[in-house]
Amino acid sequence: MRMPQLEPLPGLPERVTIYEVGARDGLQNEPTVVPAAVKAELIRRLVAAGLDLVETTSFVNPAWVPQLADAAEVLDLLGDLGRGPRRPVLVPNERGLDRALEAGVGAVAVFGSATETFARRNLNRSVAESIAMFRPVVDRARGEGLWVRGYVSMCFGDPWEGEVPLGQVVDVCRALIDLGIDQLSLGDTIGVATGGQVVALLRALDAVGIGVDRIGVHFHDTYGQALANTLRALQEGVTVVDSSAGGLGGCPYARSATGNLATEDLLWALQGAGVRTGVDLEAVVQTSRWLAGQMGRPSPSRVVKALTGD
Amino acid sequence: MRMPQLEPLPGLPERVTIYEVGARDGLQNEPTVVPAAVKAELIRRLVAAGLDLVETTSFVNPAWVPQLADAAEVLDLLGDLGRGPRRPVLVPNERGLDRALEAGVGAVAVFGSATETFARRNLNRSVAESIAMFRPVVDRARGEGLWVRGYVSMCFGDPWEGEVPLGQVVDVCRALIDLGIDQLSLGDTIGVATGGQVVALLRALDAVGIGVDRIGVHFHDTYGQALANTLRALQEGVTVVDSSAGGLGGCPYARSATGNLATEDLLWALQGAGVRTGVDLEAVVQTSRWLAGQMGRPSPSRVVKALTGD
Repeated sequence: MRMPQLEPLPGLPERVTIYEVGARDGLQNEPTVVPAAVKAELIRRLVAAGLDLVETTSFVNPAWVPQLADAAEVLDLLGDLGRGPRRPVLVPNERGLDRALEAGVGAVAVFGSATETFARRNLNRSVAESIAMFRPVVDRARGEGLWVRGYVSMCFGDPWEGEVPLGQVVDVCRALIDLGIDQLSLGDTIGVATGGQVVALLRALDAVGIGVDRIGVHFHDTYGQALANTLRALQEGVTVVDSSAGGLGGCPYARSATGNLATEDLLWALQGAGVRTGVDLEAVVQTSRWLAGQMGRPSPSRVVKALTGD
Repeated sequence: MRMPQLEPLPGLPERVTIYEVGARDGLQNEPTVVPAAVKAELIRRLVAAGLDLVETTSFVNPAWVPQLADAAEVLDLLGDLGRGPRRPVLVPNERGLDRALEAGVGAVAVFGSATETFARRNLNRSVAESIAMFRPVVDRARGEGLWVRGYVSMCFGDPWEGEVPLGQVVDVCRALIDLGIDQLSLGDTIGVATGGQVVALLRALDAVGIGVDRIGVHFHDTYGQALANTLRALQEGVTVVDSSAGGLGGCPYARSATGNLATEDLLWALQGAGVRTGVDLEAVVQTSRWLAGQMGRPSPSRVVKALTGD
């Protein structure tokens, strides 16, 4: 099926930057370790498709995420393509930063939590302690001239705490911005958010001086809301969207572990509305199809399914 | 997971009417015939969940749609619950209307096409000939005091013709309204539409005197756009949305035949935004789960999967 005629969608930005997370966030929950060569080839293909902001890997403790224990190897395989300010890597702490700097990266991302329970489970620290842990990471990264991103998980709902008060999210965002990070990524980690919450959080952040120019949005499709929430954020002026090629992320067969917003489904919406992204949809679809073959199961992206018949 | 806190979504209507199509549009493509007793039980459960506008069945020629050959039997099993102005049935022509009137229904729907190719394939007639065929159906139905709906298929894209010119869709809508029908249902039959097209069509219809008070929207999720398009239509003032319990419709495993917008995914979005529907989400989820058991395969609704772990 060809893309239907373009019709501008009132209120959307003219251009959107896709922050491609498939190679890191998408793969990190895969039970079967994907070879480093496949990861490097995935990133090469994504970049060739026009996705020029690609998170490549993670320098967390390999014992925590065995899937990404090959971070340095993936970057070695990529050479210059894996470096620079448009190829961030995840780092949890100074040890991770050391390894990232050793690998010569040009951008890093730290990952905080809006809730105490998830901070404990994911970082083994309170929210305040995790912010304190990030401070020297951000200081040193900035001192080295790196671009720095800060993820905020569980911005809308938390599987243990339920509702997450807006003020609590704003406080964590403010603390991260005060550390000196360049961009926040607001995460709906369990995919429960609806549009009103998205608008409310963006407006609350704006009210404390964190404008949409420093915000990316990161939605999961667990409850089918990812694209709708993303488009609503764009109507509020956000221009950076996290998505994952093929909807990689979590296992499509397991409860409450469905994937990130699929890059292809996002691209379909944006291209239809005439929003420029610089990305070749067909090339991303073929990349997801190739990766599905490598992983032995179909892509959960609806656009990939519709266009390839897989 | 509990529904997160309510946050009104600016620009949405206070109340939305869900037009539940699962029992008819959802089931009609099922390859295995579902017993009439299961269909009747499905409708009883949907109504008990608060879905008070439910399309029950279709009086098309049983040779065309064997799945719905039991229309009269389903209505017999339902008794009064299957009658009245809130229980439409599909009728293609006067023969179908005869059977529907014999069964004592209180509302009917005709189904037109915005494209010539689909009109030929679905109705074996040109668009103009199909409108002519509907005229005596609508006249007689209105004479009997029935509520009358008109579906318009392929409003945004057509698998044979590709792009569908806006003016062509408006002309078909205008012709149906001129017949005297009460409500249009604008269908994205192959799920390719994006938000700008939705806004453009609604505004073009308004410009020819067809306001949102006479419009329902009907999206399929083939390209992952159904919920986003629906919410955008609500922002334009539409208050009637077609959806299908559990996302029934088409086969979830086949290309370009994915289902209708899932009623549960729509309800999640609307409840989160504080939009009233009168529907009990949990009861619909349990209904879809029960039906999935009857049909031997899981519901494609993301909310059903997330809430039930199926």
